[in-house]
Amino acid sequence: MLSEREIIDRLRRQAARVGPGLRLGIGDDCAVLDPPGPGRLTLITTDTLMEGVHFDLAWHPPELLGRKAVAVNVSDIAASGGESRFALLSLAVPPGLAVEVLEGLTRGIMEALTRHRLTLIGGDTVASKGGLALSVTVLGEAAEGRVLYRSGARPGDLIWVSGGLGLAALGLAICREGRVELGRRYPELLAAHLDPAPEAALGPALAASGLVSAMIDMSDGLATDLAQIGAESGVGARVFAERLPLPDSVREAAASLGLDPLPLAISGGEDYRLLFTSPPEAAGRLGGLARLACGGQLFAVGEVVAGAGVRLEAEGRVTDIAFKGYDHFRGP
Amino acid sequence: MLSEREIIDRLRRQAARVGPGLRLGIGDDCAVLDPPGPGRLTLITTDTLMEGVHFDLAWHPPELLGRKAVAVNVSDIAASGGESRFALLSLAVPPGLAVEVLEGLTRGIMEALTRHRLTLIGGDTVASKGGLALSVTVLGEAAEGRVLYRSGARPGDLIWVSGGLGLAALGLAICREGRVELGRRYPELLAAHLDPAPEAALGPALAASGLVSAMIDMSDGLATDLAQIGAESGVGARVFAERLPLPDSVREAAASLGLDPLPLAISGGEDYRLLFTSPPEAAGRLGGLARLACGGQLFAVGEVVAGAGVRLEAEGRVTDIAFKGYDHFRGP
Repeated sequence: MLSEREIIDRLRRQAARVGPGLRLGIGDDCAVLDPPGPGRLTLITTDTLMEGVHFDLAWHPPELLGRKAVAVNVSDIAASGGESRFALLSLAVPPGLAVEVLEGLTRGIMEALTRHRLTLIGGDTVASKGGLALSVTVLGEAAEGRVLYRSGARPGDLIWVSGGLGLAALGLAICREGRVELGRRYPELLAAHLDPAPEAALGPALAASGLVSAMIDMSDGLATDLAQIGAESGVGARVFAERLPLPDSVREAAASLGLDPLPLAISGGEDYRLLFTSPPEAAGRLGGLARLACGGQLFAVGEVVAGAGVRLEAEGRVTDIAFKGYDHFRGP
Repeated sequence: MLSEREIIDRLRRQAARVGPGLRLGIGDDCAVLDPPGPGRLTLITTDTLMEGVHFDLAWHPPELLGRKAVAVNVSDIAASGGESRFALLSLAVPPGLAVEVLEGLTRGIMEALTRHRLTLIGGDTVASKGGLALSVTVLGEAAEGRVLYRSGARPGDLIWVSGGLGLAALGLAICREGRVELGRRYPELLAAHLDPAPEAALGPALAASGLVSAMIDMSDGLATDLAQIGAESGVGARVFAERLPLPDSVREAAASLGLDPLPLAISGGEDYRLLFTSPPEAAGRLGGLARLACGGQLFAVGEVVAGAGVRLEAEGRVTDIAFKGYDHFRGP
């Protein structure tokens, strides 16, 4: 069993102690940061992944789990239009955890930090009497006047998503049911659940474009995340089922599992695509911007309306789906 | 059972959404902060309290636990010479937790935030398959050139502590052994363990004085925390047992429990007093400063020497006590 100090030392050795904007990183009571550059604001977010709730080590490779713990926070910063800069990590480690798992975790964390150009500046490592828990806090920055909030959507705006829906929910279903052959056939579904890629480039590009009125990342599913935009903006939303981007892999894997892909696309969380609104006249320019920023595609799935609620229109029927998402206290 | 949203809403209602230095607090993907004022730096720290490791709900009143989760972070900011400004809270809640416990916790958290003039700006609430866990991140600020690090101690400096030692360790022993009568007789020992008071005023005052060369807060015990200063400063330390401030309550309660108070004072963690070094000529001015800042008293317990290690001199014998503290992975 590694001691607390040995685990911390392992992470410390890979973390910069000083650097651009950083007076002192890991190794003191606090990390000390310079203010962001002129005209820039600081963004901060935190997210915790708990064993048995957010992940299952039976199928989640530790390296990918480490990457995911960082990625979900980078996604929040990107959804505000910011770039991630610094991270703090709190690791709660159960006594029996294999050293290989801990090594994989720390390797994955470091990979994600490097990929997203983040510097680890602090955190703590504690013993856990329950399961493994990873709590990551990320600091980012954005230009003043270019931060995007959930509150800017206006009636008449179009509603966009930045990629396919339901992938992570199906990836999770494949893992839960142990359908190895489906996992091999649709690796993008497994990757969406195990190793999500945040929209780290697209988020700041959309914010800089000035074309977007409100934005959120889809961690809880379209129905809940769109309801959040609605609640913060004081508006409602109409979503058209036939416009939701359901990749062939989602349709085919859902069929193999006897599942309806539509509820997965609507309520399945953790796709980490961006959900945003923009005035209709911006539509043409948005598509080009997405291709340029990340080679991705944008999908207009509905429109903002006056009032409240999230109405799904599917084959002539209208259902209110507001907050029909994943609640970590209630299960899916 | 309250839902995740109801718990978050309860905290949200008490948290400011905008305020001095705060563009947007709770309620979006990120919190958005103005840069600190001219010539000021940002400090950040995080600390996690895990059920069964750092606290036991059998004797820890939830309200005091909530206060402690905030206080230990305020202590880290103060030990760097900073003032605490903003907090993020990650709460991992086991399914069976009584609503009264959750209410007590959130009430205690809010009390501590108010007392230390902190604004809650974010966090998350997740279900826990293990025990309760509270992870708090605090952002603070300090004037450039006035931040104190562990690395500034020089041979010849005096070593100071800002209050009595061993109180929290004895408070914990009283709780563990269920010695209710001792708890009633020595409430300051219980308070030290259950409801520690960080040196929120003294830390910044010592930093502003320019008299201090290195500082840390004592969370892991004198032996370990002094070894941290030694390791970061490239120096050693001599500590004189007879100069360690052992209050009567510590001596008497230790005797009642059949314990030797000296090891408790040296290795018992969580006293959250400041441990710092200063050139010997500053001694006179330091005492006055402490009385002025917080009505407290400072104790010179040893001196910084060239070399390495932490040597305790007690009744003519010398022992190396470096890192003989509490390691959360090994137990006390």
